[in-house]
Amino acid sequence: AHISEQSSEMAELGNYRHFMQKEIHEQPRALADTLHDAVAGESLMPELFGFEAAEVFSRINAVTILACGTSFHAGKVASYWIEALAGIPCRAEIASEYRYRDSVPNPDALVITLSQSGETADTLAALNHAKALGHQYTLSICNVPESALVRQSKLRFLTRAGPEIGVASTKAFTTQLAALFLLTLLLAKQRGRLTPAAEAAHIQSLRELPGKVQHVLALEPEVERWAERFADKQHALFLGRGMHYPIAMEGALKLKEISYIHAEAYPAGELKHGPLALVDKDMPVVAIAPNDTLLEKLKSNLQEVRARGGELYVFADADTHIAPSEGIHVLQLADHAGPLSPILHTIPLQMLSYHAALQKGTDVDKPRNLAKSVTVE
Amino acid sequence: AHISEQSSEMAELGNYRHFMQKEIHEQPRALADTLHDAVAGESLMPELFGFEAAEVFSRINAVTILACGTSFHAGKVASYWIEALAGIPCRAEIASEYRYRDSVPNPDALVITLSQSGETADTLAALNHAKALGHQYTLSICNVPESALVRQSKLRFLTRAGPEIGVASTKAFTTQLAALFLLTLLLAKQRGRLTPAAEAAHIQSLRELPGKVQHVLALEPEVERWAERFADKQHALFLGRGMHYPIAMEGALKLKEISYIHAEAYPAGELKHGPLALVDKDMPVVAIAPNDTLLEKLKSNLQEVRARGGELYVFADADTHIAPSEGIHVLQLADHAGPLSPILHTIPLQMLSYHAALQKGTDVDKPRNLAKSVTVE
Repeated sequence: AHISEQSSEMAELGNYRHFMQKEIHEQPRALADTLHDAVAGESLMPELFGFEAAEVFSRINAVTILACGTSFHAGKVASYWIEALAGIPCRAEIASEYRYRDSVPNPDALVITLSQSGETADTLAALNHAKALGHQYTLSICNVPESALVRQSKLRFLTRAGPEIGVASTKAFTTQLAALFLLTLLLAKQRGRLTPAAEAAHIQSLRELPGKVQHVLALEPEVERWAERFADKQHALFLGRGMHYPIAMEGALKLKEISYIHAEAYPAGELKHGPLALVDKDMPVVAIAPNDTLLEKLKSNLQEVRARGGELYVFADADTHIAPSEGIHVLQLADHAGPLSPILHTIPLQMLSYHAALQKGTDVDKPRNLAKSVTVE
Repeated sequence: AHISEQSSEMAELGNYRHFMQKEIHEQPRALADTLHDAVAGESLMPELFGFEAAEVFSRINAVTILACGTSFHAGKVASYWIEALAGIPCRAEIASEYRYRDSVPNPDALVITLSQSGETADTLAALNHAKALGHQYTLSICNVPESALVRQSKLRFLTRAGPEIGVASTKAFTTQLAALFLLTLLLAKQRGRLTPAAEAAHIQSLRELPGKVQHVLALEPEVERWAERFADKQHALFLGRGMHYPIAMEGALKLKEISYIHAEAYPAGELKHGPLALVDKDMPVVAIAPNDTLLEKLKSNLQEVRARGGELYVFADADTHIAPSEGIHVLQLADHAGPLSPILHTIPLQMLSYHAALQKGTDVDKPRNLAKSVTVE
């Protein structure tokens, strides 16, 4: 049985060495499938999120997002989107924190739970806790139909990432983001904050998203060269700002999970409030810097640690004006993708952690101590 | 001039080797001074926060706390207190994030800014950003009278920590917490959520707080022995849950700042969602565990990494039933202090980082790359 299972897995792997690598490269397809129904026409329909979605969207005045791990990072990106584009107060909270604290319930809030498997124990418990507090407007975004989270929520959106086998989530994360962006647009539209022209432009951007992701995937050889410089490090600092701060968090988590490099994320503005003390030649700093403003500030912050050998690795956009210099490495992705930029900036971070782990020879698809779905506390 | 300044500093130091150590030990006095006016009678007066406080407290329906670094951690503790005890929705946000994103202003929110110096550039800019968005109910909690933040806020509370010279904040943090707890009680009282008996009991607890802090300070020799085991480590993980999660963040930040050990904090429930992959004999795990429940879960989480030599260091309360065992070290503080527990649990973490830094021989009071007040971006 063991042998046949292995050969079946090997057949599924095709030309890839690991499921994680395969799943990273499946993202254009996964995103296209997830977005397929939504972008078929010129207008977004609330029913993408379920039969009663239009009514629920018209009744809510706040959004609370509950999730764990990588899904929490998707929720945190969405909290920036929903406040900025839909004008609705939104907070993302770690499910295990929410379920154990005395919070202030708002019965008019939409409570969103995110989980690839739909079976994450803390997220399920958080959903039940919210319902016990009187929350009736619930939405789950999952990758597995008929999962517990889906069955127990009023509204639902199923991502179409397909089965995810690598323990480190990749395509489930970016398809969650795609679903959350659709939700943001629908909430904005419901509140009259989205003109038909803006809606059409966003739909067009979503249609182009799989191609743009494909373009970023083509940077793998360059990212692999960067990964060689990380493989002998024990530490890394990931910096982002705004909707790219959760992407920095996700990049750091990926590196932790599979390469066992102690990577930590900070919002860029916090660097001088402590973590700068750690930066020297053994602590590379990764910046998710889609625009020049953040980078200029980072550069001035890092000037004083250049003398200690601190090196900066910047994931920039193609339309920025960032020149590499001594100790400052720059990789340019595509032109700035507006609010979809977090999805594109995720891709090279996944590849960075994958190739760093390859170099280190860790068990990429089954990292030590971790399970794919955390179905116990 | 240089010599006389030094000798004046040495005179101020008295029997202490560093200002940080002196300031850690000044906390009973700093807390007593900060709480002096509040606990003089049997009832808390809103005017502690300024002339117009009673009126402002009656008008607000939400609280937003803006701060950087250590002050942000105080704000995050307060967000748990304010939701649980006063029943008012509260969020703490990093000032540099808030000022650069499109948020949804609520003109009926109380906007609190926290800063030891009252001159932190990002916090000042966040306050001005909030005012530009229409926020008129502003409160600053500072340690320096006449600072920019105090001058520009409608309400204010001055902590009486006295001058803080060590770059790593200690007494400014615990006195901020004391001020925020007074605020929580006043907000709860204004909303009819605090009976006179409960109010009297809280005031009595606050009167006893300096003595309880003194009791925890007496554990310094034991904490110093633990610190010896950290000095040769490059990493540490700090875990907490609920109102002790920000204390874990503060403990990790202190260790980063002065010992240059890469310490990172996680809410305990997130351990299995990634960071557990990092745990082995080189990555001690520190748990802020005032009760048995969290510890039981942690123990089961860590069982699988015991084989890899992962060691757990627990700061527990005296009335818990936590027995040390192979690879599980336990230090019992005082009896559980209810909502004031985060203040008590801060103290051993300050001492741990101080003694780890001493062992490593770093410049405790002036760690590399950091400034006392971050008055530039």
